[in-house]
Amino acid sequence: MRLRNIPGAEAALREYPTFVDNPLFYKGNWKERFGNNNPIHVEIGCGKGRFINTLAERHPDINFIAVELKAEVVLRAVQRTEYKAIPNLAFVQYDASKLTELFADHEISRIYLNFSDPWPKTRHAKRRLTYKSFLNTYRQVLVADGELHMKTDNENLFEFSLNQFAAERFQMRNITFDLHQSKLAADNVMTEYEERFSSRGQRIYRVEASCVIK
Amino acid sequence: MRLRNIPGAEAALREYPTFVDNPLFYKGNWKERFGNNNPIHVEIGCGKGRFINTLAERHPDINFIAVELKAEVVLRAVQRTEYKAIPNLAFVQYDASKLTELFADHEISRIYLNFSDPWPKTRHAKRRLTYKSFLNTYRQVLVADGELHMKTDNENLFEFSLNQFAAERFQMRNITFDLHQSKLAADNVMTEYEERFSSRGQRIYRVEASCVIK
Repeated sequence: MRLRNIPGAEAALREYPTFVDNPLFYKGNWKERFGNNNPIHVEIGCGKGRFINTLAERHPDINFIAVELKAEVVLRAVQRTEYKAIPNLAFVQYDASKLTELFADHEISRIYLNFSDPWPKTRHAKRRLTYKSFLNTYRQVLVADGELHMKTDNENLFEFSLNQFAAERFQMRNITFDLHQSKLAADNVMTEYEERFSSRGQRIYRVEASCVIK
Repeated sequence: MRLRNIPGAEAALREYPTFVDNPLFYKGNWKERFGNNNPIHVEIGCGKGRFINTLAERHPDINFIAVELKAEVVLRAVQRTEYKAIPNLAFVQYDASKLTELFADHEISRIYLNFSDPWPKTRHAKRRLTYKSFLNTYRQVLVADGELHMKTDNENLFEFSLNQFAAERFQMRNITFDLHQSKLAADNVMTEYEERFSSRGQRIYRVEASCVIK
């Protein structure tokens, strides 16, 4: 997502109780931050924040963490919380390729990848969030039966991702080429991007993949 | 494929040296029929026969068997052989759901499914050639590292098949949503149906799946 640079975004973030200024401090101890042992679900790249905010409302027994690289993007998402302290929601500004700095081995239960950058050029394949090096990072921080839930409107990224999941021995499930016309539509929480693109007739692809320990 | 009923098709078939009139006789002994121990590749549903005839020409070190239910369809395909005896090619008229009557356990190395009937109605899902009961039959007759190669122009059948392969623990590879634009196009042998449909701009989906013994 492209946003204007927002001067002072990083300072502004610290005003929000759901923003975690010192995320490395919680590695291996996120349960302390949340004050309970509930499962932790992570969204990588939070867009405008509707998805993670909605899930946090719907599932008070799950702890949600949004990990997003750009301060301006985190700020847009965290603004939805209106300075409220939401006990099961946290926003982190960090590089997703370094998830192992944020989370101990097997500390989290699920990862959401929503409309990640497709990086269409072959020479940028390693930057795609389903490239095998990312999958191995996810496997490290996810519990043994942990899951990845991926949505995209980009067919090439979807095709690439299915092949990566298969090659890295992730167990796939609920593969759909048209989420909004599928039986999974009822429980689907749309991101802002998803709503805009699907309203133009763009189909949404989705897959769940669980890490089968090699 | 729909064809007019051809009177006397079954009798006509017996005139062709590549047609095997008594296929059950060879169960477990197809190497006797071919006179060698070369790997056996099977096409289920042979269409007009170009695919299997072309593969047999290109790969003299592989034995090919086309299994097709309808006598009229087998006849059209076998007519391409022009009454020649082709040492590594055999045509069989038989029901693919009964492959275990034709082949001993682990007797064959590869199965091709080309443009199988999509059976679009949900209540007919069990008839699709990638339904789990078929996959378990294939697993039984295929060698341990045996492969299924599937092509289709039907997106719903492809989506269904990917889910079946995943659920039945087949290891997928080379998943492509547009075969003719992919790196696999160079080695692709087009069926008659494929040529006709792709010339109209219809995309071809393809996947390889190998049976990982449970």
